[in-house]
Amino acid sequence: MIVCRTKTELMLQLSELRRNGERVGFVPTMGYLHEGHASLLRQSKIDNDVTVLSIFVNPLQFGPNEDLDRYPRNEERDLALAAECKVDLLFMPSVQEMYPEKPLTTIIVNQITEKLCGASRPGHFDGVGTVVSKLFHLVQPERAYFGMKDAQQIAVIQQMVNDLNFPIEIVPCPIIREPDGLALSSRNVFLSAEQRQQAVVLSKSLQLTDEWMNDSEMTVAQLVAKVKLQISEASTAVIDYVELLHYPRLDAPEPTALLKSIKQPLLLALAVKFGATRLIDNRLLNFMEVEEHV
Amino acid sequence: MIVCRTKTELMLQLSELRRNGERVGFVPTMGYLHEGHASLLRQSKIDNDVTVLSIFVNPLQFGPNEDLDRYPRNEERDLALAAECKVDLLFMPSVQEMYPEKPLTTIIVNQITEKLCGASRPGHFDGVGTVVSKLFHLVQPERAYFGMKDAQQIAVIQQMVNDLNFPIEIVPCPIIREPDGLALSSRNVFLSAEQRQQAVVLSKSLQLTDEWMNDSEMTVAQLVAKVKLQISEASTAVIDYVELLHYPRLDAPEPTALLKSIKQPLLLALAVKFGATRLIDNRLLNFMEVEEHV
Repeated sequence: MIVCRTKTELMLQLSELRRNGERVGFVPTMGYLHEGHASLLRQSKIDNDVTVLSIFVNPLQFGPNEDLDRYPRNEERDLALAAECKVDLLFMPSVQEMYPEKPLTTIIVNQITEKLCGASRPGHFDGVGTVVSKLFHLVQPERAYFGMKDAQQIAVIQQMVNDLNFPIEIVPCPIIREPDGLALSSRNVFLSAEQRQQAVVLSKSLQLTDEWMNDSEMTVAQLVAKVKLQISEASTAVIDYVELLHYPRLDAPEPTALLKSIKQPLLLALAVKFGATRLIDNRLLNFMEVEEHV
Repeated sequence: MIVCRTKTELMLQLSELRRNGERVGFVPTMGYLHEGHASLLRQSKIDNDVTVLSIFVNPLQFGPNEDLDRYPRNEERDLALAAECKVDLLFMPSVQEMYPEKPLTTIIVNQITEKLCGASRPGHFDGVGTVVSKLFHLVQPERAYFGMKDAQQIAVIQQMVNDLNFPIEIVPCPIIREPDGLALSSRNVFLSAEQRQQAVVLSKSLQLTDEWMNDSEMTVAQLVAKVKLQISEASTAVIDYVELLHYPRLDAPEPTALLKSIKQPLLLALAVKFGATRLIDNRLLNFMEVEEHV
């Protein structure tokens, strides 16, 4: 596995790796890798000749009061997992290497970024769009892989790629979960034993929607209320948002609309704090329609 | 010369043209081509294996009260001039082809876009950055060529390329002028005979700065005042702005600073209306330093 820490090294090594027209798959991450990242790497290995992984905790996407400083890092473990996944090239730049001076350029994706995590974390998706755009230009992959756990991030990046004609296919990959249902996240490491146990309520409430969706009288607002009620049974859970929106445009259906009347794909998304740790999870509903429409 | 009107055609033809690693030079324009554009194409022909020209009047960079509808167009003449310049591939998309739906994504370059034409034309450079970014992704050139007549545009695009790590070299090319000094512009066609004659005052006032720069007592504010006075001698000229700024960051030197004390590159830029026609022109001062610094 080639490890590059500078842009110059990266470009040199990449031009070598793709000398015979090899196709490049790219998995951009913030490190502290887990099985969710490994699943993206495995999919890239299947689809492409060369797989590039980047690890970069991007300061631009953290707000002033967010967890940039305490975001978990473990370079040694990440290197081992990347090697185990047979990554061909690992790009681990420093902040100085990515932002040698304060950038003046921002990529803004309107509307889609104003909902869900965008509403709770102003500027977050501007930072995501900007760094993903930088990484896309540096790696120039044919395909890039993102986990559906951040469904909004995928919607934002896909919109940016469409609007700006990036010659890159965005491949969404399924959420990977612990045996008890908790979605994998680098931030799970911060949960106390009690919080960890209670955090199962997130995936459990999402799963219960299957049953509730079959209720022909259930409205949008009622489903959201039921999920909120379910989550509030966990004593340490503080709900940031629970929302049911059209996907991928993230506009809201009428709260009084009957679920059975909505044929478009819907995203049931939630963000919940356990102590200082904010977790997100989601579920795509009307999924057969998603497969057809997206 | 291959002419492509769709993105699909363009990418197909480009992959053919660059099959053996040919290097691509790109000249993005709004058409109504003149000798200024031809000079960019000639430079690209010298530097690269393949030269791509695009002609697209981008609605996104025109304000609601600007001259989008009356911007001059002449496809037949453009095709002839492109062929004469031995363009390899001409990309002429429709608005529908470039914007099949309303884009949600905007590229904003802060600070540099707030001065000069950015101040007079709010949103203009967001539109420029966005369309140039789209075209860069579609054409994927090694080099792109822009005329120094819009020095601010070059500064904005270079900043965007640096900040977002576009793998593209931006090549600035000199302003091309009529024998009497008027900078070539597609908009010159709108000038009446009287306005055309008076418009010479722009290049003349810029030329006079050579002499004024030698005055060891001359300040920034005095030079700007002298240029404004010179221009106002033309009875039909209405000044939009005359400014002397550091280049390429476009921040302002102290108005009371002596010119001889400023060692950084300076841009003397102006925009002047003759009737409904707004013309721009500029001159780089301390040019030897520019060559060293940029």
